[in-house]
Amino acid sequence: MPVIKNVLIWDSARGDAEYGDIEIGADGRISGISGAGASVGEVLFDGQGRTIALPGFVNAHTHVSMTLLRGLGEEQPLMEWLQKKIFPIENRLRAEHIRSGADLAMLEMISCGVTCFADMYYFMGEVARSALASGMRAALCRGITGDDGGKIQENIELAEEYNGRDGRIIVQLGPHAPYTLPRAALETVARLAKEKNLGIHFHWLETKGEFDTFKETYGEEPVDYLESTGLLDVRELILAHGVWFPEGELHRVRRDGVTIVHNPKSNLKLGSGYAPVKAMLEAGVNVALGTDGAASNNRLDVWDEVRAAALMHKGYHMDPTLVSAKQVLKMATVNGASGLGFKDVGLIKPGYFADIALINMDSPQYVGCDRTNVPEFVTYAGSSRDVRATIAAGKLLYRDGEFLTLDKDEIISRARKHRNEITN
Amino acid sequence: MPVIKNVLIWDSARGDAEYGDIEIGADGRISGISGAGASVGEVLFDGQGRTIALPGFVNAHTHVSMTLLRGLGEEQPLMEWLQKKIFPIENRLRAEHIRSGADLAMLEMISCGVTCFADMYYFMGEVARSALASGMRAALCRGITGDDGGKIQENIELAEEYNGRDGRIIVQLGPHAPYTLPRAALETVARLAKEKNLGIHFHWLETKGEFDTFKETYGEEPVDYLESTGLLDVRELILAHGVWFPEGELHRVRRDGVTIVHNPKSNLKLGSGYAPVKAMLEAGVNVALGTDGAASNNRLDVWDEVRAAALMHKGYHMDPTLVSAKQVLKMATVNGASGLGFKDVGLIKPGYFADIALINMDSPQYVGCDRTNVPEFVTYAGSSRDVRATIAAGKLLYRDGEFLTLDKDEIISRARKHRNEITN
Repeated sequence: MPVIKNVLIWDSARGDAEYGDIEIGADGRISGISGAGASVGEVLFDGQGRTIALPGFVNAHTHVSMTLLRGLGEEQPLMEWLQKKIFPIENRLRAEHIRSGADLAMLEMISCGVTCFADMYYFMGEVARSALASGMRAALCRGITGDDGGKIQENIELAEEYNGRDGRIIVQLGPHAPYTLPRAALETVARLAKEKNLGIHFHWLETKGEFDTFKETYGEEPVDYLESTGLLDVRELILAHGVWFPEGELHRVRRDGVTIVHNPKSNLKLGSGYAPVKAMLEAGVNVALGTDGAASNNRLDVWDEVRAAALMHKGYHMDPTLVSAKQVLKMATVNGASGLGFKDVGLIKPGYFADIALINMDSPQYVGCDRTNVPEFVTYAGSSRDVRATIAAGKLLYRDGEFLTLDKDEIISRARKHRNEITN
Repeated sequence: MPVIKNVLIWDSARGDAEYGDIEIGADGRISGISGAGASVGEVLFDGQGRTIALPGFVNAHTHVSMTLLRGLGEEQPLMEWLQKKIFPIENRLRAEHIRSGADLAMLEMISCGVTCFADMYYFMGEVARSALASGMRAALCRGITGDDGGKIQENIELAEEYNGRDGRIIVQLGPHAPYTLPRAALETVARLAKEKNLGIHFHWLETKGEFDTFKETYGEEPVDYLESTGLLDVRELILAHGVWFPEGELHRVRRDGVTIVHNPKSNLKLGSGYAPVKAMLEAGVNVALGTDGAASNNRLDVWDEVRAAALMHKGYHMDPTLVSAKQVLKMATVNGASGLGFKDVGLIKPGYFADIALINMDSPQYVGCDRTNVPEFVTYAGSSRDVRATIAAGKLLYRDGEFLTLDKDEIISRARKHRNEITN
């Protein structure tokens, strides 16, 4: 039985961290946790008492293949950026580019201790195969725009082919956003989601303009629209951004299966504004964290989002007691996993899948870190630089700079070639 | 003649980056830049065309020895944090603790490509010796509080002993802040600074409370006070924070020798607010970047401040075109160096000191980076994780995880012992 030996274990269901060994069963789940050094079995990783074990990070909203578009059209207003830079290139992307960008994203995320992500894009079979090959867990949907039965059909076929595959893939339906999809199409998607027991992933109130013109454009207030189109009744509803979610209406999405994904750095970089995370937490909404795509962030490093989320709201409200390290790490792990529909993911306890990031405490930044302050050290002092190993479903994906499921050099060299193709 | 071969060179005086070799003279200055692969001489580092060379980062405001206090009293209101957690421990610190914390900070900064820092604390001879041993460049001052001739005397003695040492140390006078020093003492400090041709490093309008009560407390408006106490007339004046600097008065500090040090993450974490960086840049003020101490940040990684500065103001003003990558990297390099009084530091050009950070472009995040977009990739996609080597005054301090001037294991183990001493 594989064992992660002698690590300092913390997850968001714990107060203080504890030293122990993590035992992993043949099904990729944690079978037991015993005192440090007490377990016998094949040593998957020896933490030597100087390694933190955290649940793997969950990137609950991204567009992985946009790694190929990173850095294009920097520091431009949103619509100019989309229309002049991003859309023309996206029109040229072929399946092989989507795969290349996805593979590149797997490298980046795995090296940062991310074990699970949610993606909305197109040619999503490529993303599914990339995730499966990498060993990561993924919640995938085909972005649906317009009144396009073809895209809905693609999304349904994606679900038929990949939903539940290897226990690591969940497929949602992906209506893109209120402003890219007519009401009738949205109602169709919601109805199909219920019929087929699928969730929905949806961009939601990212910009002020969207909020300001909502009632005028759609004939009702935002949350009424969620309700009347049927989106609130699906298996799981993943609302990306929610920057302009009306605070007084948050209680209406405090329910099982509804998650708002906060994307701190993308919201800052695009000048979208400050999501009301303080109010979301007070209302008891399930909040997760996402990086958004690499073209608007420009990293897929959830650790950066953890720190940004913990800092930006303190600054905005001028209150250092807000949005604690423990709260953001919960967002970045179990809130994301459960929000995406994964059961038994996001905590380090028997019965949960062994999705684990192992963090080196022998760096200068961790002097002073002990059982009582792991989440604060991780959030404010640590970084993905200290990730020594990444494990998903009990399998080692990354260790000390080496990728065990992916060929880093081949992926980077292929991605460079494709980047040149699409930009020249 | 030592050569850094085949690197992609960028500094804030350039538009596009260029491939080349950097030649270093016996005086630690850059003696020439030639075409990539053209130089002959001892190869200090071979970038193989896949390495970016940037000027070393400058951390223009910190308290290095506070690495020993990292993580104490998290998420508390500022005054409670200072009075209940920080001050009682600071009262217990001895010279050996100051040295330990400083040594730990040198490890952290060097590994992040930081080659120069400005520090205000006490037992500053220890910090000077730590900086000298590490190979870093430092601008140091003794924090002066109260009407204490003793502290002023210590600061003067620090200057007599270390100012100009090895060409790497500058000593300023360090009146702590308006609220910790009576006007008479501040006037004395300003007079001594002029007599002895020294600069001044000063905490300035960090919190709203300080600004709101300024006129009532000191009898004049903030910038009038800077002027009437004589602070504006010294060799260099380093104003840390300036979060509440009145925008309409910024033109009065747009002058040679005056620098405002923006501390993005500390200001967010302590809930101090948003410095008017947009207005500072518009007014043409020299703005530098600092991390502040590790107890209120909690990293000494200037790269994090670069990203935070580039993102937070875009978000705050809801304008993605503000505070560009090029502007923040200028703040983080030559603006800091010149603001601290270092001549010929902060650019990569002949005659300037070879203070250089070397960045690996073979990571997934750098696919798409080329001559035209180095500052944007560094700011938005890169991180200190990619630092392969750090060079100061032509000397290699760090390479591929190894410290060449410091004993990492000894420093970390000593720091752990001292951390335990001061917290138990």
